[in-house]
Amino acid sequence: MGKILCAGLGPGDPDLISVRADRTIRAATHVAHFRKAGRAGQARRIVEGMLRPDVTELAMEYPVTTELPFDSPGYTKALAGFYDDWANRLADLAQGQDVVVLCEGDPFLYGSFMHLHSRLQGRAEIEVIPGIPGMAGCWTVTGQPITWGDDVLTVLMGTLPEGDLVRHARAADALVIMKTGRNLPKVRRALAAAGRLEAAFLVERGTMPGQRVARLSEVDGADCPYFAIVIVHGHGRRPEMPE
Amino acid sequence: MGKILCAGLGPGDPDLISVRADRTIRAATHVAHFRKAGRAGQARRIVEGMLRPDVTELAMEYPVTTELPFDSPGYTKALAGFYDDWANRLADLAQGQDVVVLCEGDPFLYGSFMHLHSRLQGRAEIEVIPGIPGMAGCWTVTGQPITWGDDVLTVLMGTLPEGDLVRHARAADALVIMKTGRNLPKVRRALAAAGRLEAAFLVERGTMPGQRVARLSEVDGADCPYFAIVIVHGHGRRPEMPE
Ligand SMILES: C[S@@+](CC[C@H](N)C(=O)[O-])C[C@H]1O[C@@H](n2cnc3c(N)ncnc32)[C@H](O)[C@@H]1O
Ligand SMILES: C[S@@+](CC[C@H](N)C(=O)[O-])C[C@H]1O[C@@H](n2cnc3c(N)ncnc32)[C@H](O)[C@@H]1O
Repeated sequence: MGKILCAGLGPGDPDLISVRADRTIRAATHVAHFRKAGRAGQARRIVEGMLRPDVTELAMEYPVTTELPFDSPGYTKALAGFYDDWANRLADLAQGQDVVVLCEGDPFLYGSFMHLHSRLQGRAEIEVIPGIPGMAGCWTVTGQPITWGDDVLTVLMGTLPEGDLVRHARAADALVIMKTGRNLPKVRRALAAAGRLEAAFLVERGTMPGQRVARLSEVDGADCPYFAIVIVHGHGRRPEMPE
Repeated sequence: MGKILCAGLGPGDPDLISVRADRTIRAATHVAHFRKAGRAGQARRIVEGMLRPDVTELAMEYPVTTELPFDSPGYTKALAGFYDDWANRLADLAQGQDVVVLCEGDPFLYGSFMHLHSRLQGRAEIEVIPGIPGMAGCWTVTGQPITWGDDVLTVLMGTLPEGDLVRHARAADALVIMKTGRNLPKVRRALAAAGRLEAAFLVERGTMPGQRVARLSEVDGADCPYFAIVIVHGHGRRPEMPE
């Protein structure tokens, strides 16, 4: 009886994978990863050169659904079927051996693995290896701490309605906004409305080849990659010391 | 000319240190870490057995200030002097060789290193190696994803005023509350007021020896260690797919 191990890969630089995930990936005989149809996939790219020559690879290709709005019943149904299907295949495989599922960043932080995880409950032994979240790689490359003292940190998705973004951007000291991509113009408007635009940084492909760090106010919003995060640093309320 | 490298250690299990930090720590000739006077220090404990036999260790002991309220001028002054002092010593040392500063979790997320980092600007080359935040280790050991889809995640310090805790606990989908320790009774009251107490977990020493995961409502608040985090999981607003 094998198990399903989900290995968090960290922000992108393979040197930032944990010692345990690194060892697990190098020893794996079966490796699964998500990708868009026809793309290499970021998770697979991170482990390039690390896999055994005799590894069996399973590319879990998202169903082509960019034609469908993401909140339409058709989209939801296609995705649910896709996850059901792969949960079945991985559960079957894990009867015979360990299967390693690759996941960018930390698996339990807005990761796709959780859609398999919920479907695999009670059907296979599952182990999740945490990873450095993409956002931690991104704030590190800005060269400034994200939070000090009693700062409140809020993590938002760029897919949220503009009004929600404004409200949360006003209430927190430090901000992380993920899934920026095509939502960048909305994110920029929301930060401007909340008075936070001048302090915001845009990190594209943090710790990956092609990394870029810029002030959001100086970026021309025309094209922003999927791997892009907006960071607004906190400045601390008072000095701190452990209890 | 050497440099100052701050190595994020992750949540506690040495196997969760990044490949780069692991290599850096094992090669280090000079290692500095924070600790309370008379205590071993959690950062030092994590790297036990990893250091070179000929390593020079620098224990940065917080000034004894538990007699002083943490927002009093005396406390602030003692701490500032302590950080000034160590920034000077590390800057001097880094003239001759690399110095590795150990930091629990991720250095730029509420870490003590940032007080040295701000003082060392322009005086030494500094490199920060991100780490898995303590909170990611903690939500992983609860066995459930912290966030799905468009969930809003807010990270709070238990040291905040009760009213602030209530307000933010109401506004977010998923919550992390750090620096729980002696603030546990206040945190519990705030979560109850926000209607989130029944869903809250308390993780003590996540991924460390002595780890405990419990429902906060079932924990007797009498003694809670410094390394304790409260987690309220989000449940997702809708399915997600990368762009
Ligand atoms: C579905 S979420 C997955 C998050 C992942 N589980 C994590 O812990 O980072 C994908 C989003 O993460 C962000 N992201 C992750 N890694 C990144 C990196 N290295 N640089 C920029 N953005 C990144 C982007 O905003 C992207 O849209
Ligand atoms: C000053 S903060 C430092 C945070 C650190 N830089 C990080 O990224 O986790 C200290 C707080 O982190 C939390 N913490 C860090 N690691 C933890 C662990 N393994 N288990 C429980 N709590 C932890 C506790 O709430 C503690 O009070």
